[in-house]
Amino acid sequence: MDYAIINGKLIEAGEAALLVNDLSIQRGYGIFDFFKVVDGEPVFLGEHLDRFYASAAKMRLEPSVTRAQLISDIHTLLAKNNVPESGIRLTLTGGYSEDGYSQSDPNLVITQSALSLNRELPAGMSIITHEFQRQLPQVKTIDYLMAIWLQPLIKQSGAADVLYHSGGNITECPRANFFIVTSDGEIATPKENILAGVTRAHVIKLAGRKYNVRERDIHLSELEDASEAFITSTTKHVLPVTEINGKKVGDGRAGEITTWLSDAYNQLVFPAKLSK
Amino acid sequence: MDYAIINGKLIEAGEAALLVNDLSIQRGYGIFDFFKVVDGEPVFLGEHLDRFYASAAKMRLEPSVTRAQLISDIHTLLAKNNVPESGIRLTLTGGYSEDGYSQSDPNLVITQSALSLNRELPAGMSIITHEFQRQLPQVKTIDYLMAIWLQPLIKQSGAADVLYHSGGNITECPRANFFIVTSDGEIATPKENILAGVTRAHVIKLAGRKYNVRERDIHLSELEDASEAFITSTTKHVLPVTEINGKKVGDGRAGEITTWLSDAYNQLVFPAKLSK
Repeated sequence: MDYAIINGKLIEAGEAALLVNDLSIQRGYGIFDFFKVVDGEPVFLGEHLDRFYASAAKMRLEPSVTRAQLISDIHTLLAKNNVPESGIRLTLTGGYSEDGYSQSDPNLVITQSALSLNRELPAGMSIITHEFQRQLPQVKTIDYLMAIWLQPLIKQSGAADVLYHSGGNITECPRANFFIVTSDGEIATPKENILAGVTRAHVIKLAGRKYNVRERDIHLSELEDASEAFITSTTKHVLPVTEINGKKVGDGRAGEITTWLSDAYNQLVFPAKLSK
Repeated sequence: MDYAIINGKLIEAGEAALLVNDLSIQRGYGIFDFFKVVDGEPVFLGEHLDRFYASAAKMRLEPSVTRAQLISDIHTLLAKNNVPESGIRLTLTGGYSEDGYSQSDPNLVITQSALSLNRELPAGMSIITHEFQRQLPQVKTIDYLMAIWLQPLIKQSGAADVLYHSGGNITECPRANFFIVTSDGEIATPKENILAGVTRAHVIKLAGRKYNVRERDIHLSELEDASEAFITSTTKHVLPVTEINGKKVGDGRAGEITTWLSDAYNQLVFPAKLSK
């Protein structure tokens, strides 16, 4: 991308930087949100901004820009970079800290990156499980320390991602929510100690039109009996999980309900494409 | 301070910056170490560098400089800034990430800050306890998200710091190790799930000359019966804890053993000052 915006100022992307006393670099203190742009238009922008401001409030970070100004900045960046299919990240940090520990006026960074969204049902993926609970799970913090640290382990296992569990219950993947379909056809997804994904909310709504959906605790042992499993995320949409810890989910292929949900969600996100 | 060093390059401190795609800003991924400088000389530099390289290895971050080069850079910075009493921070991040998630060549930032070290026994401080376990506790990561987030709560409680506990046992303060003296005169400090502080190691050694010292699990309930308590850190040295969760420790003043250890440690760190 050619440009980024820091604290309302348009900057060449290759020069977008924060001073090293920023509290993100000093103490990992910051939040962000990320939404996709399809045909040049932000998708579910309102919901992402709601979550962005909610994360900021929970972390006691006060953005210096109003919501209207932020939306205006986003459209300025979209116009300047002019990449119809892409992702926009809003990062809000603890600011330039006098002593490397105390909060200051937050820095707001808006960056854009290329995206290539899948319009078909993707191939099923393999995941592993790992015991871990994110701190402040309802907040979209920049803390992905464990996720990055686990990457070599995930790759060694021949998996594509990791599913966290804690206290016997599964929670989420580092960048995606997790769903199962039980053997009696219920769609279930963890309710507690997770980030409330925007895609997750839309998928729950879509699924409710046709299936029994419950947000509830899901014990780790339920994974073995699940007939289907999938993750949801802003970039991955509905993605089948066909193997967990080396064991097939159901018959090891994307199931009927997952396929239906993937289609339904893609119709929501790519309406123009479908009518062409 | 006038100068900082990034990846071996001397830079004016006010311009020391990292591009926003650095993995510290994107995902909170990085480690650091911090040592003090007294009379222009780094204190316990070898031990801090040992820990810095150990943290880096555990986080799979490979510094681009050798230990000899890093020491040379530190002395270059000391000579340029010329502040006899100060702190030096070495920060190593996940590097400039292509996709905002994958590791890249780490960035190494060396910054210096003013310090004013206490040469006397400081006044006792009040702390509160909070249930939390740092991820990768043996690694000095930049993750202080919970510590920063708890600051308003600590202040509201009229306390100066927080002591974490997990699974019934106490562990550490965000930036200091914790010790108690039991009613029968044993000095005890948590052994597991903590960062191995450099000051902690020296204090254990000093204490062993005169007292019974044990690294062991300390149950939260032991705090109530402790006759003394103190923390240790690079900048705070031995600092008496005289109140925990609003309740006095012992008689609410710095105890005999804490006072002896504070003196003994200060003699180790300020030898020149004492002979003047």
